[in-house]
Amino acid sequence: MPESNRFMLQELTWPEVKDAIRKNTILVLVVGSVEQHGPHLPLGVDTYIPLELAKLLAKRRRLLIAPPITYGAFSRPKSGGGQSFVGTTSLTGSILTEIVKKLVGEYVRQGFKKIIVLNGHFENSTYVTEGVESAVGSAKGVKALIVNWWDIVPECVLSSIFPEGFPGWEVEHASVTETSLMQFFMPELVRSERIIDDRAPRSLKYEIVPSPEDIKPKSGVLWKATLASQENGRQLAAAIVDELSAIIKKEFA
Amino acid sequence: MPESNRFMLQELTWPEVKDAIRKNTILVLVVGSVEQHGPHLPLGVDTYIPLELAKLLAKRRRLLIAPPITYGAFSRPKSGGGQSFVGTTSLTGSILTEIVKKLVGEYVRQGFKKIIVLNGHFENSTYVTEGVESAVGSAKGVKALIVNWWDIVPECVLSSIFPEGFPGWEVEHASVTETSLMQFFMPELVRSERIIDDRAPRSLKYEIVPSPEDIKPKSGVLWKATLASQENGRQLAAAIVDELSAIIKKEFA
Amino acid sequence: MPESNRFMLQELTWPEVKDAIRKNTILVLVVGSVEQHGPHLPLGVDTYIPLELAKLLAKRRRLLIAPPITYGAFSRPKSGGGQSFVGTTSLTGSILTEIVKKLVGEYVRQGFKKIIVLNGHFENSTYVTEGVESAVGSAKGVKALIVNWWDIVPECVLSSIFPEGFPGWEVEHASVTETSLMQFFMPELVRSERIIDDRAPRSLKYEIVPSPEDIKPKSGVLWKATLASQENGRQLAAAIVDELSAIIKKEFA
Amino acid sequence: MPESNRFMLQELTWPEVKDAIRKNTILVLVVGSVEQHGPHLPLGVDTYIPLELAKLLAKRRRLLIAPPITYGAFSRPKSGGGQSFVGTTSLTGSILTEIVKKLVGEYVRQGFKKIIVLNGHFENSTYVTEGVESAVGSAKGVKALIVNWWDIVPECVLSSIFPEGFPGWEVEHASVTETSLMQFFMPELVRSERIIDDRAPRSLKYEIVPSPEDIKPKSGVLWKATLASQENGRQLAAAIVDELSAIIKKEFA
Amino acid sequence: MPESNRFMLQELTWPEVKDAIRKNTILVLVVGSVEQHGPHLPLGVDTYIPLELAKLLAKRRRLLIAPPITYGAFSRPKSGGGQSFVGTTSLTGSILTEIVKKLVGEYVRQGFKKIIVLNGHFENSTYVTEGVESAVGSAKGVKALIVNWWDIVPECVLSSIFPEGFPGWEVEHASVTETSLMQFFMPELVRSERIIDDRAPRSLKYEIVPSPEDIKPKSGVLWKATLASQENGRQLAAAIVDELSAIIKKEFA
Amino acid sequence: MPESNRFMLQELTWPEVKDAIRKNTILVLVVGSVEQHGPHLPLGVDTYIPLELAKLLAKRRRLLIAPPITYGAFSRPKSGGGQSFVGTTSLTGSILTEIVKKLVGEYVRQGFKKIIVLNGHFENSTYVTEGVESAVGSAKGVKALIVNWWDIVPECVLSSIFPEGFPGWEVEHASVTETSLMQFFMPELVRSERIIDDRAPRSLKYEIVPSPEDIKPKSGVLWKATLASQENGRQLAAAIVDELSAIIKKEFA
Repeated sequence: MPESNRFMLQELTWPEVKDAIRKNTILVLVVGSVEQHGPHLPLGVDTYIPLELAKLLAKRRRLLIAPPITYGAFSRPKSGGGQSFVGTTSLTGSILTEIVKKLVGEYVRQGFKKIIVLNGHFENSTYVTEGVESAVGSAKGVKALIVNWWDIVPECVLSSIFPEGFPGWEVEHASVTETSLMQFFMPELVRSERIIDDRAPRSLKYEIVPSPEDIKPKSGVLWKATLASQENGRQLAAAIVDELSAIIKKEFA
Repeated sequence: MPESNRFMLQELTWPEVKDAIRKNTILVLVVGSVEQHGPHLPLGVDTYIPLELAKLLAKRRRLLIAPPITYGAFSRPKSGGGQSFVGTTSLTGSILTEIVKKLVGEYVRQGFKKIIVLNGHFENSTYVTEGVESAVGSAKGVKALIVNWWDIVPECVLSSIFPEGFPGWEVEHASVTETSLMQFFMPELVRSERIIDDRAPRSLKYEIVPSPEDIKPKSGVLWKATLASQENGRQLAAAIVDELSAIIKKEFA
Repeated sequence: MPESNRFMLQELTWPEVKDAIRKNTILVLVVGSVEQHGPHLPLGVDTYIPLELAKLLAKRRRLLIAPPITYGAFSRPKSGGGQSFVGTTSLTGSILTEIVKKLVGEYVRQGFKKIIVLNGHFENSTYVTEGVESAVGSAKGVKALIVNWWDIVPECVLSSIFPEGFPGWEVEHASVTETSLMQFFMPELVRSERIIDDRAPRSLKYEIVPSPEDIKPKSGVLWKATLASQENGRQLAAAIVDELSAIIKKEFA
Repeated sequence: MPESNRFMLQELTWPEVKDAIRKNTILVLVVGSVEQHGPHLPLGVDTYIPLELAKLLAKRRRLLIAPPITYGAFSRPKSGGGQSFVGTTSLTGSILTEIVKKLVGEYVRQGFKKIIVLNGHFENSTYVTEGVESAVGSAKGVKALIVNWWDIVPECVLSSIFPEGFPGWEVEHASVTETSLMQFFMPELVRSERIIDDRAPRSLKYEIVPSPEDIKPKSGVLWKATLASQENGRQLAAAIVDELSAIIKKEFA
Repeated sequence: MPESNRFMLQELTWPEVKDAIRKNTILVLVVGSVEQHGPHLPLGVDTYIPLELAKLLAKRRRLLIAPPITYGAFSRPKSGGGQSFVGTTSLTGSILTEIVKKLVGEYVRQGFKKIIVLNGHFENSTYVTEGVESAVGSAKGVKALIVNWWDIVPECVLSSIFPEGFPGWEVEHASVTETSLMQFFMPELVRSERIIDDRAPRSLKYEIVPSPEDIKPKSGVLWKATLASQENGRQLAAAIVDELSAIIKKEFA
Repeated sequence: MPESNRFMLQELTWPEVKDAIRKNTILVLVVGSVEQHGPHLPLGVDTYIPLELAKLLAKRRRLLIAPPITYGAFSRPKSGGGQSFVGTTSLTGSILTEIVKKLVGEYVRQGFKKIIVLNGHFENSTYVTEGVESAVGSAKGVKALIVNWWDIVPECVLSSIFPEGFPGWEVEHASVTETSLMQFFMPELVRSERIIDDRAPRSLKYEIVPSPEDIKPKSGVLWKATLASQENGRQLAAAIVDELSAIIKKEFA
C-alpha cells in the first residue's frame, strides 16, 4: 500500500501524523470489549465490527483510525450474558470513563479537531459519553461525534433482515446482526457449525443482583443467530457505512 | 398515623429500624435527579415519581423507604435536555456509583437482606447497577432488585395511553407519562396552563460534543405533554404498583 | 401557595429558577445525615432541623432551598454514637467532599452567586468546608457561607435553656437542643414517652479504634433529653433564624 | 546512646524493628503540619510539639516513634490563619486520609498491635480518624488510640496558665500554649523578640468562602502569645506526658 | 489454521477459553504504547514487538495471547522523546496501574493461574508491576511473571549487535534494536529510506520540568538507527524467545 | 546559628519564607523512604542521604530545604528487598504521585520558582516525575529539576570506589555507596560490626509475583557492604555536591 494511503494511526510515523493533523484529518476511535459472543463468535466481536466498519469508511474518505480501546465496561446479563461467562474480561465503568477522557484529551492536545468515537459494546455507551464530554469540554474548535453502530442502522435494513419483526437491540447479542457482520467481515473467525438460536429461560424487566442463572442463556446467544447470513452482513455494513458517510458530510463539512 | 405504620426510614428511631430488620423488612431506595422537566413540571420529578410509587406500594405491604438519592447523573440532551438548562444539577457518573455502592453497602451491613433500588432518572441506570453490584458482591443471603419504573409499565397500559403509538421512553421526558403521573401524585406542582407539546428541531441517532442547541427543544419538553391527564397518571401508577407487587412476590417470597 | 412564593428549588420549574438567578436570589443548601438519635427521635434529625430553619428563614426573606444532601459523613461514638447503631447510614468523608464540591460547582455554573450551606451534622463540618472551597475557588463574584446551626446559637439562649450550665455541643446529640427543636418543628415525630437522660459509661478525651462499647450510651442519647421542651425549641429556632438573618444582611448586602 | 535505647523507628535496623514487634512494643505515629505560626514560631510547630512529647514519653516507657507525617490538612483561617500565609503548605483532606490509612495499614501488616496516633494540627483530626478506622478495620488484636495533645491537657493546668480564663483551643494557634511548649522544647527556634499578641479584626461563628482578609490576624498569631513562658511549657509538657502515660497504662495494659 | 491452534484470545469463543483454562494454559498479556519512534518507525512499535515475540513463542508451546494494552504511560524525553511529539498518546501512570490491576484480576477470576505480562514500553514498568501485585495479591496458586523484553536479551547478543559497545537501553528508543526487530517482524512498516542516526543535543543526568527542547533529538531517534538490520532483528527475536521459553520452563514447570 | 543562615524551611517563620521567596531562593524537596537497609543501616537511609547532601549544598549557596517526604513508594525485591522485610513501610505509587503533585503545587502557589526534587529511593523515580510534571504544568517562570543522587555520581568516583568494577545501581542497596555515605554523614547510626556482604541466591531478569524468597538476600544487603568506608563516603558526598552546584549554576543562572 502506498504510504499515503495508510489510515491506521498505529502504523504511521509521527511526521505522518503531524501532516494528517495539518490537513485537519478526521480521527476515528473505536471502543469495543472482550466479551463472550456465544459458541460461534470470538470474544473480540465488539471491537472487530466497528473497526472493520471504520476501515470500509476509510476507503471512501481520508481519515485515521486510532488504536481501539479493546477492553470495555462490564457485561450485563440482559445485554451480553454478564460477567460469569469465562472469557468476558471487563473494566469498571469509571476506569473506562477515565481512559476515554484521557485519550480523547491527548488527541485534542495534539491538534485533532474532528473526532468520531465508534462504539461496538452496548454497556460502554454512557461511560464513553461521559469521558468524551470531560475531555472536549471547552476546547476550541473541537467537535466529537459518538456513534453506536446499531443506532444508525436504517429501519429499512432492519425490516429486510428481520422479516418477522425486530426483537430489539438488547438481545441482538451474538445474534443475527453481529453474526451476519462477522460472516461478512471475518468469516474465518465464525464457527458456522455451532451457530444456534437461544434465549434466556426467563426474561426480566428489571435487574437482580447477584444475577441468577436463569436470566441468561446457557450458550451466551441472546436470541436467534441462525437467521444470520453473509449477505445480511454485507447489507448491514454497506448501510452503516453510508450512514457514517452522511453523518460526516453533515457534521464535519 | 400509628407508629407501627410508618414506612419512611428517616422518620423511624433506631430501635424501630432494628425491629424492622429483625422482621426481614424490604428496603426501597429511590434514586432520582434534579433536572429540568419543561415549563410545567418541577425539577424534582425524577425523585417524586418513584417516591410516590413506593409510598403507594407501602400501603399494600410492609416495607421501609430509605431517604432518596436526590441528585443523579448528568442529563443528556436526547433524554433530558442536557446540562445547559438552568436548574439541572447533576453529579458525575462515578460519584453516583460511589454513593450507591456505599449506601447499599451500609444497609447490607445493618442487616437488610431484601433491597429494591427504584430509579426515576434515565441517565442513572448504568451507574446505579454498577454501584449495587459492587456493594452486594458476595454478601450472603442478600438480594437486590433494580427497577426503572418505566421498564415495568405493561404494554396494554402504553397502548391505552398512546392511542397513536408509543414514541419511545427516551423522549418521554416531561411528556405524557411523567406529566400524567405528576398530575395524579402532586397536582399542585403541575403548572397546567404551561403544558405544551414540543420536540427537538433535529433528532439525532448519535451524540455531538459539545452538544449543539438544535438537538434539544427550547422548552425542555421532549415530546407531547398535552396528551397527559390525571386519569392516565392514575392508570400508570396502579399498573406500576401492581407490577412491583408481583415482582416482590416472585423474588422475595 | 402562590407560585411566586415557592422556595423549594425541587418544586420549581427551570424558567422559575432562571428568573430567581436573574434576581440574584440566595441559595440555601442543607447538609444532614441519617443517624441514630436515641429511642425518641427519628434518624433524619440532622436534616430536618436545618431544613426547618431554612423554611422559617424563607418566610422572612426571598431565598431558594436546594434539595438537601441527606446522607452525611460517618458518625463518631463521642458525638453521635458511632456507626454501630442500626439505622446510622453514612458516606465516607471523601465522598461527601466530592458531592459538595460537585453540587456547589453546579449551582455556581448556573449562576447562583450567594450560597449558604447549612449543616446539621457535627461530623460533616470539615468535609463540607473542603468541598465548598474546591468548588468556589476562583469563581468571580461568588460568596458562600458555611453555617453549623449550633455555632450561631447565642450565649443568652444557651444560658436560658441550660440553667445548670451548658455541657458542650459534642454531647448535645439527641439531647436537649435537638429534642427541643424537633418538639417545636415536628412534634409528631418525637416519641415523647421514650425521652430519657443517658450518657456514655466512659467519657474519653481521645479516640479508640475499634471503638469499645462503653464509650457510647446504650440508648444513643449522649446526655439529658428530659430537659427538652417545645418552648425551648421555639426559642432556639427564633434565635437561630434571627442570627441567620443578621448574617445574610451583613454578608450579602 | 546504647542501641537498645533507641526509639526513633527511622534510626533502627530491620532486625531491631522485628525484635520490637516481637516484644509487642507500642508505636507512636505523629501527624503534624507545615503551617504559619506567627512571626515568632517556626512552620514546623505542629510536628515539633507532638514529636517532643513522644520523646519525653519514650524516656519513661519502651515505645517506638515512627517517622512523622509532616504535611497535614489545609489550614483554616479561624484555627490556623488559612492557606493564604506564605509558608503554609498543605495536603487535601482526602490525600491525608489515604496516607494515614496506608501507613497505619503497613504498620499493622508488619505486626504492630498497639498504635498511638499523636496529632499536633487542629485541622487534621477528622481525616486522621477516618484513615485509622479504615486501616484497622477488622484487624485482629489491634488497638489504636488517636490523641490530639490539646485534648488531654488537664483543666487545672489550663487554669494555672490562663489565670484570666481560657479562650478556647481554636485560637490557641501560635499563642500561649504553643509558644510556651516551643520555649520549653526548642527555645533556639523561638524568635523571642517578635512575640506579640494579636487577634483577627473580625471573629466569625461561620465560614466565608473565599475567606476575607479581616477574619485572620495580619501576624498569624490568633490570640495572646506574650503570656507564654518556658515554665508554662514545662508544666504543659509534664502534664500531657503524665496523661499519655496514664492512657497507655489503661488502654494497653 | 485449525481452531485448536489459535492462540489469540480475542479470536476464541468462550467455550474454547474455558477449555484452555481447564488445561491450565499460560496467558500472555502484552503492554505497549502509542509513541513516536522516529521518522522511520510507526507509533505502535512498543506494542508490535512484544506481540510478535509472543506469537513466535506461541509456535513453540501452547499459550494464549490476551488483547494487548495498547496505550501506555506517558513518554519521557530521555527514554522516548517525551509527550511533545505529535502522535505520542499516553495514559497517566495511575490509570495504567488501574487497568493492569483490573484486567489481571479479571483473568485470575476466570481461572488463569500462569500469567506473563510482556512489556514493550520503558516507562510502563513500575506501573505494570504495581498493578500486577495488587491484582494477584493473595490469590491462591496464581503466579505471574513480568518481563521487559530488553531485560532478557543475552549479553552475547548485545555484543554481537553493538560491536563498538552497547550505549544503554534508555537511548535504545527507535534505535538499533527496535529498528532491527521491526525490520524482521514487520518490514513493510519500516520506512527504510528515512532511517537515521540522531541524538539529543544535550544529555542530562537529571530531569527538567518543563522539559527544554534541547534534551530530545528533533527526529525522535535517541541514538543510532543505521546500525539496524533484519539479521540483527532475527538474532534478537530468536534469543528473546529462547529466553522466554527457558523462563517458562523454569517458572511454570 | 544566625537566623539569616537557617535553611530548613520547617524552622523558619512565615515572614522569613516570604523574604526568601522575594529573593527567588531555590527550594530543595527531598523524597526518601522507610525501608530496610540490611542489619547495619537504619530504615531512614533513603531520606538521610539526600537530606545531608542538601545540607552540605546549603553551606555553599543560599537555598531552603523543605520538610522531606519521608515515606516513599513500595520497595521491590530486586532493588530494595521488597515489602516483606519488617520495617519497610511504604505508600502506593499513586498516593506518592498525589503527594508530590500537591506539595510542589503548594510551593509554586507560594511563589517558589526554582525547585530541586532530590530523590533517595530507587522506586520513587517515576512517581515523583509524574507528580512534578502535573504540578508545574504551565505555571509561568517555574523550573523544577528532579535529581536521583546516584545518577550524578561521576564515573571517575565510581571507578575509584569500585576498583573491581561497578555492579550497577540496582544492587547498590545497603551496599558500598549507601554504607559509605552513612559512615560519613551519620556514623553513629551505622552498626559497623554487622556490616556484611550478601546477595540474592537467585538473580532474576524479570519479576515474579508473588515474589519468592530466593530472589532477595536474607540480610537485606543486595551486594557487598564491606567495601564501604568513611573516606569513600566523603569522596562521594563531595562529588555529588559538586555536581549539584554545577547543575544549579547551569540551570538556575
